[in-house]
Amino acid sequence: MNHKTVRVGLIGAGRMGSFHAENLALRVPGARLTAVADLQPGAAQRLADRLGVEKAYTDLQALLNDSEIDAVAIATPARTHAELVIAAAQAGKHVFCEKPMAVTLEEADRAIAAAKTAGVVLQVGFNRRFSAGFAAAISAVKAGENGTTQLSRSVTRDPALRDPAPIPQWTIFLETLIHDFDTLLHFNPGARPVEVYALADALVRPDFKDKGLLDTSVVTIRFDNGAIATAEANFQAVYGYDVRGEVFGSKGMLQAGNINQDNCVRYHADGIAIATSRMDTDLLRDAYVAEMTEFAHCILHGETPRATGIDARNALEIALACIESVQQRKPVLLGAR
Amino acid sequence: MNHKTVRVGLIGAGRMGSFHAENLALRVPGARLTAVADLQPGAAQRLADRLGVEKAYTDLQALLNDSEIDAVAIATPARTHAELVIAAAQAGKHVFCEKPMAVTLEEADRAIAAAKTAGVVLQVGFNRRFSAGFAAAISAVKAGENGTTQLSRSVTRDPALRDPAPIPQWTIFLETLIHDFDTLLHFNPGARPVEVYALADALVRPDFKDKGLLDTSVVTIRFDNGAIATAEANFQAVYGYDVRGEVFGSKGMLQAGNINQDNCVRYHADGIAIATSRMDTDLLRDAYVAEMTEFAHCILHGETPRATGIDARNALEIALACIESVQQRKPVLLGAR
Amino acid sequence: MNHKTVRVGLIGAGRMGSFHAENLALRVPGARLTAVADLQPGAAQRLADRLGVEKAYTDLQALLNDSEIDAVAIATPARTHAELVIAAAQAGKHVFCEKPMAVTLEEADRAIAAAKTAGVVLQVGFNRRFSAGFAAAISAVKAGENGTTQLSRSVTRDPALRDPAPIPQWTIFLETLIHDFDTLLHFNPGARPVEVYALADALVRPDFKDKGLLDTSVVTIRFDNGAIATAEANFQAVYGYDVRGEVFGSKGMLQAGNINQDNCVRYHADGIAIATSRMDTDLLRDAYVAEMTEFAHCILHGETPRATGIDARNALEIALACIESVQQRKPVLLGAR
Amino acid sequence: MNHKTVRVGLIGAGRMGSFHAENLALRVPGARLTAVADLQPGAAQRLADRLGVEKAYTDLQALLNDSEIDAVAIATPARTHAELVIAAAQAGKHVFCEKPMAVTLEEADRAIAAAKTAGVVLQVGFNRRFSAGFAAAISAVKAGENGTTQLSRSVTRDPALRDPAPIPQWTIFLETLIHDFDTLLHFNPGARPVEVYALADALVRPDFKDKGLLDTSVVTIRFDNGAIATAEANFQAVYGYDVRGEVFGSKGMLQAGNINQDNCVRYHADGIAIATSRMDTDLLRDAYVAEMTEFAHCILHGETPRATGIDARNALEIALACIESVQQRKPVLLGAR
Repeated sequence: MNHKTVRVGLIGAGRMGSFHAENLALRVPGARLTAVADLQPGAAQRLADRLGVEKAYTDLQALLNDSEIDAVAIATPARTHAELVIAAAQAGKHVFCEKPMAVTLEEADRAIAAAKTAGVVLQVGFNRRFSAGFAAAISAVKAGENGTTQLSRSVTRDPALRDPAPIPQWTIFLETLIHDFDTLLHFNPGARPVEVYALADALVRPDFKDKGLLDTSVVTIRFDNGAIATAEANFQAVYGYDVRGEVFGSKGMLQAGNINQDNCVRYHADGIAIATSRMDTDLLRDAYVAEMTEFAHCILHGETPRATGIDARNALEIALACIESVQQRKPVLLGAR
Repeated sequence: MNHKTVRVGLIGAGRMGSFHAENLALRVPGARLTAVADLQPGAAQRLADRLGVEKAYTDLQALLNDSEIDAVAIATPARTHAELVIAAAQAGKHVFCEKPMAVTLEEADRAIAAAKTAGVVLQVGFNRRFSAGFAAAISAVKAGENGTTQLSRSVTRDPALRDPAPIPQWTIFLETLIHDFDTLLHFNPGARPVEVYALADALVRPDFKDKGLLDTSVVTIRFDNGAIATAEANFQAVYGYDVRGEVFGSKGMLQAGNINQDNCVRYHADGIAIATSRMDTDLLRDAYVAEMTEFAHCILHGETPRATGIDARNALEIALACIESVQQRKPVLLGAR
Repeated sequence: MNHKTVRVGLIGAGRMGSFHAENLALRVPGARLTAVADLQPGAAQRLADRLGVEKAYTDLQALLNDSEIDAVAIATPARTHAELVIAAAQAGKHVFCEKPMAVTLEEADRAIAAAKTAGVVLQVGFNRRFSAGFAAAISAVKAGENGTTQLSRSVTRDPALRDPAPIPQWTIFLETLIHDFDTLLHFNPGARPVEVYALADALVRPDFKDKGLLDTSVVTIRFDNGAIATAEANFQAVYGYDVRGEVFGSKGMLQAGNINQDNCVRYHADGIAIATSRMDTDLLRDAYVAEMTEFAHCILHGETPRATGIDARNALEIALACIESVQQRKPVLLGAR
Repeated sequence: MNHKTVRVGLIGAGRMGSFHAENLALRVPGARLTAVADLQPGAAQRLADRLGVEKAYTDLQALLNDSEIDAVAIATPARTHAELVIAAAQAGKHVFCEKPMAVTLEEADRAIAAAKTAGVVLQVGFNRRFSAGFAAAISAVKAGENGTTQLSRSVTRDPALRDPAPIPQWTIFLETLIHDFDTLLHFNPGARPVEVYALADALVRPDFKDKGLLDTSVVTIRFDNGAIATAEANFQAVYGYDVRGEVFGSKGMLQAGNINQDNCVRYHADGIAIATSRMDTDLLRDAYVAEMTEFAHCILHGETPRATGIDARNALEIALACIESVQQRKPVLLGAR
């Protein structure tokens, strides 16, 4: 890079894409949003107009061919991610890809290889690790302050089940718990997951169970050093967005993401009331900005981001084992990696 | 004492007396409630019956003359305390007296002298210092862990203004803030209060202001080492009983009595909800038992209680200065003690 | 019962027995500790002397035959509980038995039957449900305030691994997690556990693994309505005794037993510091008194305690399934009850 | 304004100026930092270079004459503020001025009048009201949710006393507590302060007391409706930057700015540890960005900022009364405004 600002093109102008676009346009030092692409007619243009971005494309490849773009941010539906990562890398663009980066291990391997071959930065949207609490916990674990991890836990509860109809079948593992798997892998540095057991059911919307939609799950992971981790997800927490982690080791315990923290506590006739966050983009706003800031920084300084394609593959391996575990109703052993 | 249980006679069978009676009968190791006295016909008998206590008196002196009683607990109206302390001491009984022990310094001095002459234990009901949080804070201050105190604060907010009609005029200083003055004196060990400024008003029930009832107050105390303390009271906190302390010194800050702590936190559609205590006898239940347990212990082991007649006098001196400050609308200097 | 105080005989004068003895002697209204028995010569006598209790036995049956005893509290090693419950019931005594009440389902059934036949109260030491936080959470769940339970969690972490040598092999399930199983069953009222999967290892003291001692475990329980629960235990939490519960339902989430709550928060040069409890008898002191108070109350008023022999059997069923699950390294289905 | 971005010139490139510059350059949508001015040779240029800003001035008036600047942000020493506000307004620039906007009421009135005459936006740096907790509390008070305010409190404790030598004499009132006065005025909407009593001393650095430096203060404010407020400041809190507010009214209590909130709680052998903020620009980072974002927004949309010149004058009036109160050692009555 011979200029000081990374010119980013966004692919996918939906809810999450729009949020990334706003951050890139307004809050990320070192980056400039220069183009938006979306297959849906008008979507890219509307977003570009709103944020004062110069170019809008309905042809994704056209954006990839744009020589005035240094990097892309991919925020399209999950199943399209891997091919877009590969195409972007082949076009010589640095790549930020929303999670999951891929939905098969083969795809993941090809995406990693493509980025490596092209010599571009490949970062995956594990934003949770960029939030202050999780970042501090993981950092303390890696520094040995918490001793050897023995037990760990990661929770994701979404605030409301939007219409379940269009949600793909294994979303709870591939798109939701993938965050928790990534977190737990970083809560257990140096350990390798060797067994996965997943229980899952449709408790929020039992009427969608026969369509394959699972909205509640608990996953148990055993590591090769004996440590045990649990991941837990649910698609409808009436009290808001709930993302927490806990890591217990030989020297202590760390808790990240406590949501009962507010800078305005209200005491009234019914007792004490504290507000909660209702949106991931609200609870984790700083983390979303931080990951994109790191993306720009890594491109400008030739550094490796903390959430890589390998991280994406590692978390995916567990997600895929969960699917197998639910299908077979038994624990699944992971092969050597 | 040549037996292992202190035989206590209670004087005053009202709300607080009944509560002390229950503790003495059921929860205080080393003490046995053996008699109750109350001027109001039937009151002592009813309480004695309820708790299985043998003797009930309507003649207070009769209880003081009872040779099978080692100690008395005084829970009558405030203005009767000092004379009862003196009479009890003269009868050779150890004395636990609810706060305020006296309402004039002259009374206080006579009560202290009477106990000294009789060689009996004299303990005053500054229960707050027996609650876990305040006890720990005061202990840390005295151990020097917090450095030299520079700023301190004590708050008392009662949960509901019972009918203000029968409340005596200066209750807010003599009966409520007296706790806070005692606390602040212990937050500033070794320092002497030299100036008091009190603001007070009738904000909860303005209609009783012309009867002299003040329900809201802030008191500022300056110590001879420059440290500054504030005490704050209000008679109607809709969210419950609120008793907190904060002491800031050259090495840190200690907070005691945080009320937003509950062992069952509820997260629901409106956010997070935490219950509060609605009664002093609920919030400070353990402290009430602890002070009475210490009373029995001091009698049995010949030790000095941590809340003495001198403490009562010291807090009263500030309360009386508050009254003068409100009357004269200016700060009042305290004489040398 | 034709008198107003329950006369209790304690069986077992070890650490927990001594603690129960102290509570019975000093803190439990309605009960009086009148005898202590322990097989070890001198142990009962020493405890009786310390607490001023009249009788001490080294012959347990002699205590059971004592006609001046209404009830017994059993605090002997776990494997002797069931036979003592049966013997006590046959002697016409009401029975409080420390957990686990039995270590086989057959024993449990015989103990329940013996109490029923004798018409005596049988209460089991699931003290956790008597702590304020857990009691409030369970009460809210039963009242429907939290909706239908979908996910729940219970954690027990002991503060320090005493010498592992004398700890029997399956202690983590039969004596530690039995509390969590009981809690989770009450977090899921009306649901029946149908599958149990247990992972366990020796992570604190790997050198004792070949002796069969497991010190770390995660158990997953699936209920017949699809709800999923996890129980988690570890024998060495360096930060103190850690007992927490969380129950997530269609209307909200409840958290019980948060240990980061202290009434004296210290702010100093290193940040903020809060003290923790180092002993179960410290963290749960009130709960221990409350369960024994309920025991006396149920005897005096002919009521059923909230922790019954059936509860003991239900939790035991899960503990036994855990042992099977660890041995077979797979999930275990529970039969119909 | 006929363009969509406000071009801002910064005056004063010291610690706070540099921080505002960074925010304007990187984090404030709607604003662009286009020039920096500082009297000290090289200071403006260095800051401009670091942030990629085009113009640097050592002549402040030159910046004010720059026709490519729409607005200025003033971050010079306090005593220069008012004249710079006036000069900027006369040059037709919108003005953001760090607190205090003026150090005499006459200056304040002239500054307010200058902005009014010029028709420019005048915003004052009361950043605290832009932090989430204080903003929510003030909003709830204004909406009546907390009832009528009866008691309120505002605290500022700086983390470390930098060399006291260059600190002007009345800094604690004019520069530190001015934030608290502003906050308390907004905690008591509709009420007018009528009496001020200030105690102040040099407790952190007694050796500087004879130079007039006061580092510790408690101020009591009485309002015309009887409500009472306290403001408290200290220049050396070893545990970090401490900014809190509490407002108690007839319907409840609100607490803002609790600093014992961290998203990574650490449990270790010494208990529980929570990190604190050591810098105002760290604790209140979001508030600094929010106030500048509002400044740009008000300019672009012709709206009135929430922290105006009138607010600055109101808080100053109390600060000046504090000085008088300390000098005369008595409460000071405020005249009608």
